[in-house]
Amino acid sequence: MTYSYLSHLHCPKCGTEYDASQLHQLCVCGAPLLVDYDLERLASEVKREDIAARRPDLWRYHELLPVQSEANVVSLGEGMTPLLPVPALGENMGIEHLYMKDEGIIPTGSFKARGAAVGVSRAKELGVTELAMPTNGNAGAAWALYAARAGIRATIVMPVDAPKITRNECAVSGANLVLVDGLISDAGKIVGRAVQEFGLFDASTLKEPYRIEGKKTMGLELAEQFGWDVPDVILYPTGGGVGLIGIHKALKELQAIGWIPAERRLPRLVAVQAEGCAPIVKAWEEGREESEFFPNSETIAFGINVPKALGDFLVLQALRETDGCAIAIGDEALLREQENAARLEGAFVCPEGAAVFAAARALRASGWIADGERVVALNTGAGIKYPDTVSAEVPVLQPEDSLKR
Amino acid sequence: MTYSYLSHLHCPKCGTEYDASQLHQLCVCGAPLLVDYDLERLASEVKREDIAARRPDLWRYHELLPVQSEANVVSLGEGMTPLLPVPALGENMGIEHLYMKDEGIIPTGSFKARGAAVGVSRAKELGVTELAMPTNGNAGAAWALYAARAGIRATIVMPVDAPKITRNECAVSGANLVLVDGLISDAGKIVGRAVQEFGLFDASTLKEPYRIEGKKTMGLELAEQFGWDVPDVILYPTGGGVGLIGIHKALKELQAIGWIPAERRLPRLVAVQAEGCAPIVKAWEEGREESEFFPNSETIAFGINVPKALGDFLVLQALRETDGCAIAIGDEALLREQENAARLEGAFVCPEGAAVFAAARALRASGWIADGERVVALNTGAGIKYPDTVSAEVPVLQPEDSLKR
Repeated sequence: MTYSYLSHLHCPKCGTEYDASQLHQLCVCGAPLLVDYDLERLASEVKREDIAARRPDLWRYHELLPVQSEANVVSLGEGMTPLLPVPALGENMGIEHLYMKDEGIIPTGSFKARGAAVGVSRAKELGVTELAMPTNGNAGAAWALYAARAGIRATIVMPVDAPKITRNECAVSGANLVLVDGLISDAGKIVGRAVQEFGLFDASTLKEPYRIEGKKTMGLELAEQFGWDVPDVILYPTGGGVGLIGIHKALKELQAIGWIPAERRLPRLVAVQAEGCAPIVKAWEEGREESEFFPNSETIAFGINVPKALGDFLVLQALRETDGCAIAIGDEALLREQENAARLEGAFVCPEGAAVFAAARALRASGWIADGERVVALNTGAGIKYPDTVSAEVPVLQPEDSLKR
Repeated sequence: MTYSYLSHLHCPKCGTEYDASQLHQLCVCGAPLLVDYDLERLASEVKREDIAARRPDLWRYHELLPVQSEANVVSLGEGMTPLLPVPALGENMGIEHLYMKDEGIIPTGSFKARGAAVGVSRAKELGVTELAMPTNGNAGAAWALYAARAGIRATIVMPVDAPKITRNECAVSGANLVLVDGLISDAGKIVGRAVQEFGLFDASTLKEPYRIEGKKTMGLELAEQFGWDVPDVILYPTGGGVGLIGIHKALKELQAIGWIPAERRLPRLVAVQAEGCAPIVKAWEEGREESEFFPNSETIAFGINVPKALGDFLVLQALRETDGCAIAIGDEALLREQENAARLEGAFVCPEGAAVFAAARALRASGWIADGERVVALNTGAGIKYPDTVSAEVPVLQPEDSLKR
C-alpha cells in the first residue's frame, strides 16, 4: 500500500521542477514551490469509498498528502471540522443555503493547525531539527506546539500587538519566542536574517512547500462533506492566502482523480480582506496579477493583516479561474457580524471569520450571490482566542442579592 | 427507524420513576434523576457496525440519547474528540500506554459543550423557552451559546473570578449574564431563588436529567475509539462529577446491549480533585457515601472548584463499583504538568486536564497504576481558555534588530 503518492515539486512561475526527497524553500526564481502527486496512479489504486471508514482527521487523505511514512505523522487529532448549516444567519442575510466550516474546532483553535501538522510532519521526515518563522500569532502558536510534539526546536517572531493567547501558546510549548515592535513583515525580515546567519529551516508562509498541503485538506473535507460534490461559493478570509490556494488545488486534484465530476463547475472563490489591509482586493479591482505592499495596514482582524503576500499571484489566479472575486470589509461591519453569528447561531467566530459573513451579506445584497446558491463561509478560528473583540458590561451581585427581570 | 430508545426517568436514591415526556427537575426526594432506555429492543435492532459510517459527532449515538426527533437536535458539531497517544509524557511518568482524550477540540473549547448540546436539545424538545443556571464559567458559556442556537433565552450566574473568556462567550451570545462576588454555590442560590420567583427552567448541574446523557458520550466514544473495548484506567477531573457518572453509565449501557463484552472488567475510574477543593477525596478516604461541603475552597483549576456536588453519591458509587479511587492534586503540581504536556506533546491542556496528568503520575509512582496498563487522561478543555496560567517573559525587538542564539 502506497501511503503517499507524492511525486515532485514545481515552481508555478517559471516551471522548474525539484526533487521532493530533498529539503527546499523557494524556487531559484523566488516564487513558492507547489507539490505534485502521481494522480494517475492514485486514481487507479484508491477509491473515495476507502476514505469513509477512516479516523475523522485530515490524515484520512494521506494518499494526497506529502508525508511518505505514517511513522512521521505528527498529529494532535486535527481536521474533519464541522460543516454546519447556519439557517438563521442565512435567513437574516437572504441566503437560503448558508454553511459555516468551523475551523475553531481544531487543536490550537485555528485552521493554522492544518498547515502546521503537515508542514511539521514533512519537516521531521526530511530531517529538520530547528525551524523559524514570523507570524501574526495563530500560525506561530500552531507551529510551536506541533514542533514540540515532533521534538523540533522552534523560533517564533510575532508583532507585539498579536493576540496575547498565541504568545502564551508559544511560551508554554518551550519555543524560542521573540516579539517585534512592528508588523509581520518586520518579523519576517528578522527571521530572514536569522535563517541566513544560523542555517535554520525557514517555515515562513509559502517559503516551504508543505504548509499549503495541510491547508488543502479544508477543500478535501468540504468535498467529502458535500457527498463528493462542491458548493457554489466559498468565502475565505485572506491574509497570506494559503488556504484559498490550497482549497483550489484540492478541488482540482479531486477532479483529476475523478472523486468529484470533471464537468462540475468549481465553486467561485472569494478572497475576503479587511478595509484596513486589502492588497489583494486592490490588485483584483485593478486587474493586476500581483499585489503591492499595502502601507499603514491596520485591522482588528489580526490574522489578515498581511500587507504583501508571497502567494498573491496564486490567490488572484484562483479567483480568475473560478470566476470569484475579492472584497474588503470594515472592522465595524465584521464586529456586528460576529455578534450576529453568536446571537443567531450560538457560533462565537473569530474576527476573520466574521469578516467572511459580512462579505457574504454584501455579495448577496449586490446580487453577486444568486438565489438558491450554496454558500460556505470559512470561520478560520475560535472566537475565544480574541477575548478583546467582545466588551461586556456585566452587573455584579452579592451572594444575598436577587436577580431582577 | 427509532431515533431514540428513551423509555423513562428514575431516581437512583429512592427508585421513583418518572414519565420522560414531561419536564422534570429533581426527584421529590431531592436527588438527581437518571435516564433509562429500552436497551433490550435497542440491542436487537441496532448494531454497533451501523455507527461507523455516521458523521463524527456525538449524535452518531442518537439511539442511546434522549432526543426523540432529529429535528430538535441543536448541534455545533460537538463530539468525536481525538483520543491521542501521548508516549513522551507517558514515558516521562513511567506509563507505557498513556492516552489523552482531548475535550479542548469541541465547540466552546470545553467538554461542557456535550452536556449543553444534549441538554438544550431536549429542553427545546420539551418546550422550554427560558432557562437559568449557575456556573464556574465553561458550562455557562456552552449553555448560553447552545441556547442561542436553539432560540432559548438563558440567564447565567457566575463567580466574578471565573475565567474572563467564558464571560465574553455568554455576553456575545446575548444571554442575561450576572456575576456574583462569591463561589458557584452562591451563584446556585441566586439561581434557585430566580427559578422559584420567575418560573424558569433550572439547568443547574444534575437538576435536569439530560446533561449527563451528553457527557455520557465521552464513554461511548472511548469504547468505539478503542475498537469497542475499554482501557484499564480512566482519570477524570471532578467538580460536579457529571462526566464521571456519565462515562460509568455509558459503559454499563454498552455492556447491557453487548457492544462491549459483558465479561470485560470496566475501567477503574479515578476522580481527580484539587487539594484546595477535595470533598469527594475526603469522603472517599473516610469511606463515606456522600461528601460534605468543603469550606474555603480555592484552586487555579477553577472548573473543579465545586465544594459540594449534588451527584457526589453517584461519583463515589462509580469509584467503588469499578475499584477506582479519588486523589487530590496541588496547584503547583498541576501547573508543572501543564508545562510538561505542552513541551513533550505539544498539548496545551487546561488546568483541570493538567491535574489529571499529575494524578496519573502520582498513581503510577505509588503502584496503583500497574505495568502495561492502558490509561486514559481526560483533558476537559483547551488551555487557551485560561491564559493566566502561563506567564511568559518575552523579549521585544525593534524591526532592525537581529535574533541571537
